[in-house]
Amino acid sequence: MPGALSGRLLALQLFSMESRAGVAATPGALPYYVALSQLLGLTVVAMTGAWLGLYRGGIAWEGALQFNVHPLCMVIGLIFLQGDALLVYRVFRNEAKRTTKVLHGLLHVLALIIALVGLVAVFDYHRQKGYADLYSLHSWCGILVFVLYFMQWLVGFSFFLFPGASFSLRSRYRPQHVFFGATIFVLSLGTALLGLKEALLFKLGAKYSTFEAEGVLANVLGLLLASFGVTVLYILTRADWKRPPQAEEQALSMDFKTLTEGDSPSSQ
Amino acid sequence: MPGALSGRLLALQLFSMESRAGVAATPGALPYYVALSQLLGLTVVAMTGAWLGLYRGGIAWEGALQFNVHPLCMVIGLIFLQGDALLVYRVFRNEAKRTTKVLHGLLHVLALIIALVGLVAVFDYHRQKGYADLYSLHSWCGILVFVLYFMQWLVGFSFFLFPGASFSLRSRYRPQHVFFGATIFVLSLGTALLGLKEALLFKLGAKYSTFEAEGVLANVLGLLLASFGVTVLYILTRADWKRPPQAEEQALSMDFKTLTEGDSPSSQ
Repeated sequence: MPGALSGRLLALQLFSMESRAGVAATPGALPYYVALSQLLGLTVVAMTGAWLGLYRGGIAWEGALQFNVHPLCMVIGLIFLQGDALLVYRVFRNEAKRTTKVLHGLLHVLALIIALVGLVAVFDYHRQKGYADLYSLHSWCGILVFVLYFMQWLVGFSFFLFPGASFSLRSRYRPQHVFFGATIFVLSLGTALLGLKEALLFKLGAKYSTFEAEGVLANVLGLLLASFGVTVLYILTRADWKRPPQAEEQALSMDFKTLTEGDSPSSQ
Repeated sequence: MPGALSGRLLALQLFSMESRAGVAATPGALPYYVALSQLLGLTVVAMTGAWLGLYRGGIAWEGALQFNVHPLCMVIGLIFLQGDALLVYRVFRNEAKRTTKVLHGLLHVLALIIALVGLVAVFDYHRQKGYADLYSLHSWCGILVFVLYFMQWLVGFSFFLFPGASFSLRSRYRPQHVFFGATIFVLSLGTALLGLKEALLFKLGAKYSTFEAEGVLANVLGLLLASFGVTVLYILTRADWKRPPQAEEQALSMDFKTLTEGDSPSSQ
């Protein structure tokens, strides 16, 4: 089939064009901001662990320490990993779009699973202790965020990774996906701060106002959580740091679609 | 001076071009989103008032009720008015740029003054009661947000309203101004949620888990605060709802600058 052959040649030609055009220079300051975000993110995770270890008796799945699984899982999943998943397109600027997409989706799946473990831990702990569920603003926001996050993942998957959606449908949905992704990330951070405050006030009560070491540590942790969020969103929203739109890549992906659909369906 | 005269004619010509070109069609869905934001914002203010009136004994500048001035002022100033100030460029799409700028600056000044009254109220209340200041995460975030907001206003004023800054300097600072404006707004919302939670836990304590009416009202208020924030940021960040860049306006403003500088310095 000469048509298929010439299409294949065109695809190869476009691919080599993309390889050259795709290697866009990384903006000078970007790596420093990414490094700062990782430093802040890892500090937040370590400090949550330190807080739970020093002042809350550590972590276990059984007994009273089961509660502590909740904050640690939420900070690792819905803060650190979710934040890093948002940065994937800024960090891997020259990898193939599909690889970057898959990494973005996988990081979010990992975040979802870890967050689910954290949710199970707190509901299980409440059940054992006979505490009421879902009465606080933290819990309302938390459930809302988790459901939105799961829906965003499902919709994102069906538009961007599942092969069905057309190019124009993807283009129209993309800005919505980005806005709601950033929104869910910010809501996760707000929910974490509410939870931290709740944990502090339940335990410290009036002692909070005497600048107890735990209170000060938790306040610093709160500020670091907010700083991680601000840094991630700065990297994400800076217009000149966006992944450059690669016309060749778009043409190529459509061409590949046509080729594979007409050629061997199993290669999809 | 024929040069000045021809410059003036050119300016007038550009002005009439701008008048025609400037009337860009308002995007169809924008008014509905703006209406939703105002509905949410006013509901938040009314609900804060209702909460303080129904469960906290109302508001007064003297005595124990002075504390209640704090949440009301903060919600009016740093939530509702700050949010509306961010929307000015989306709502007044066809007014002269300078009028819109002045309105944006004035709304922020009003928000700052009302927030200052709210700050004075809580420090004064703490002093009278002998309570410690600035020990909680809410207070740390609050002071940080207030200082950042004031600095953002000062820097914004000196770049955009004070006549000194060059056109290129303004263009380079604008994205930073927008990002930090949105960030300070989100931080204000987060701080409000922390304060709401603090006020609830201090008063309700363990009763919070029995779904007390005040707790449920405050939780709903918290969700509405978050919804107001999400709606404002959606309007603000949607690319096709941005105020259209008006080349004539830019040319005109530079031309006017040259004219007025070379003509009558007092007219600036």
